[in-house]
Amino acid sequence: MSRFHIKEEIRILGIDDSALISESILIVGAFFRGGLWLDGVMRSYLTRDGMDGTDTIEEMVKSSKHYTQIRIIMLDGITYGGFNTIDIVHLYEETGIPVIVLMREYPDFGMIRKALEYLPHKDLREEIIAKAGKISKVHTKNTLNPVYIQCRGIDIKDAARIVKLSATRSNIPEPLRVAHLIATGIILGESRGKA
Amino acid sequence: MSRFHIKEEIRILGIDDSALISESILIVGAFFRGGLWLDGVMRSYLTRDGMDGTDTIEEMVKSSKHYTQIRIIMLDGITYGGFNTIDIVHLYEETGIPVIVLMREYPDFGMIRKALEYLPHKDLREEIIAKAGKISKVHTKNTLNPVYIQCRGIDIKDAARIVKLSATRSNIPEPLRVAHLIATGIILGESRGKA
Repeated sequence: MSRFHIKEEIRILGIDDSALISESILIVGAFFRGGLWLDGVMRSYLTRDGMDGTDTIEEMVKSSKHYTQIRIIMLDGITYGGFNTIDIVHLYEETGIPVIVLMREYPDFGMIRKALEYLPHKDLREEIIAKAGKISKVHTKNTLNPVYIQCRGIDIKDAARIVKLSATRSNIPEPLRVAHLIATGIILGESRGKA
Repeated sequence: MSRFHIKEEIRILGIDDSALISESILIVGAFFRGGLWLDGVMRSYLTRDGMDGTDTIEEMVKSSKHYTQIRIIMLDGITYGGFNTIDIVHLYEETGIPVIVLMREYPDFGMIRKALEYLPHKDLREEIIAKAGKISKVHTKNTLNPVYIQCRGIDIKDAARIVKLSATRSNIPEPLRVAHLIATGIILGESRGKA
């Protein structure tokens, strides 16, 4: 039995990054009621390929006026701004908010490992990626295009339910779809891409 | 009889500005399906208290990949970035897209005229404000808080219908509510205010 009470309007903060056009990468948080309404927008900056992503997101969440309302943090993969890896175990422990990581495709770990060879803190990055845990497939709106998730602080069945419930417009949960539109729109002048 | 065909998912571009913290003011366009879904985000910059607002918005609209889909441009008042007045007659003529101006309160023309005394091109600004035309009251979701509108390229009854139809979440049409959240969130770090 699920111990996590899930309402249709469960408050979710979806976070996405923007295009890699500078060293300082804009990240945008879209604070949503389930897959329905945008209730707030926040932003911060992290370093391209840096190691400050986890702290940056933790600080953005904790300093938000919505902090006590956020029930779920949703991430678009665990590497932001290139290979700035987000430690979801630490993020959950520090914020007290369960984290769901969503991926459009099953990650290519061989390619990731190769890319990490060229970066400092390779072992620490690999450790962060490894401890993000098991990857599960979820079928949302579009059953031909499943998504893949990892989670922390919530069991996988509840996480899958929240992903399905919030994917009202496409196979991507609204908080992430909208965070992506905002981040690319602001940085590139007009939104584009995977949303 | 109305000559304007209005679907629930009529494509609307809502444009709002951000806080006055620099000379260059971010404006954000939220491209919506009626009052339902965000389909795109665009941005540009205009000069605080300048005269470049009309051209800036015209260019942002015309250069958008959504240009041919936009059926309505919605503005949050006709002064952006302080007193950069938007010429809605010109904007409609140049883009071919009807314009609806939404105001949360009936404008205080006495105060506006006083403020314009301190700015260059006072007569031109007054002329732009005057030709925006008649102001009508509309009751959207919340009948205790009416909104006020002006329009160009569309009759007032159709404009009122579109304002009502797109005010799904509050008494403000979603394209403007969301453009406001994005613009303030990006500039201030977190959205706030009138939305």
